[in-house]
Amino acid sequence: MPDTADRFLDAWHEAVAARDTASLEPLLAEAVSIGAPPYWQKLEGRPLVHFLLGLILETIENFTYHREWVDGRELALEFTGSVDGLDLQGIDLITLGADGRIANLDVLIRPANAVSALIARVAPRMQKHLAGER
Amino acid sequence: MPDTADRFLDAWHEAVAARDTASLEPLLAEAVSIGAPPYWQKLEGRPLVHFLLGLILETIENFTYHREWVDGRELALEFTGSVDGLDLQGIDLITLGADGRIANLDVLIRPANAVSALIARVAPRMQKHLAGER
Repeated sequence: MPDTADRFLDAWHEAVAARDTASLEPLLAEAVSIGAPPYWQKLEGRPLVHFLLGLILETIENFTYHREWVDGRELALEFTGSVDGLDLQGIDLITLGADGRIANLDVLIRPANAVSALIARVAPRMQKHLAGER
Repeated sequence: MPDTADRFLDAWHEAVAARDTASLEPLLAEAVSIGAPPYWQKLEGRPLVHFLLGLILETIENFTYHREWVDGRELALEFTGSVDGLDLQGIDLITLGADGRIANLDVLIRPANAVSALIARVAPRMQKHLAGER
């Protein structure tokens, strides 16, 4: 029987490979938090984190996973891709809850120019989304 | 008997905890490469990588390791610290060679403002070092 991390990873990779952001939502805990590249402060809550994840996935071209580390419910998933023709390497540091959903996700990306390009594309849409929610 | 990764990690953590950058040098392969936060291109060679690692360790205050993932000779080490009062979270993605030394090290850090502060402090000293080598 696959364990919690295996089940999560199967569903996660299937959704990401298909760029099926709707299928990511049930993989997030209701109180999920995300440590994103632009801010130290975490963003919280399933709707906001789901929206931001969708934006990031939509914006990074050729998004591909590579090395993967699993230690119980703590995961590290390496990816590469590009934004505006700038190559990038990133990692998702994921903590799963006992229910197998993401409790926290930190996204770290290098190099700095690709991070700037990503933020420049994502931030305006994020601000628009936040403004619309108020 | 501890395996390659265990032996490496013992030596690495001892050197980093003591801020003993000289002891980091023998842990690097001669042809070691580093994927640093500012550039997509790798920097190569033990003297250059050793110098840059020393600068980074010297510049990040309260440098502390946290989660650690090991898969054979592929390692992921999470750290936190601060630069100019800006909190940061980073990860070292390390590939060890068969000899137990670092063959490649990628350093990913968030958030963007802390990366900018780190680059602003490290880049001038790196450029001076490179100019002196020519």
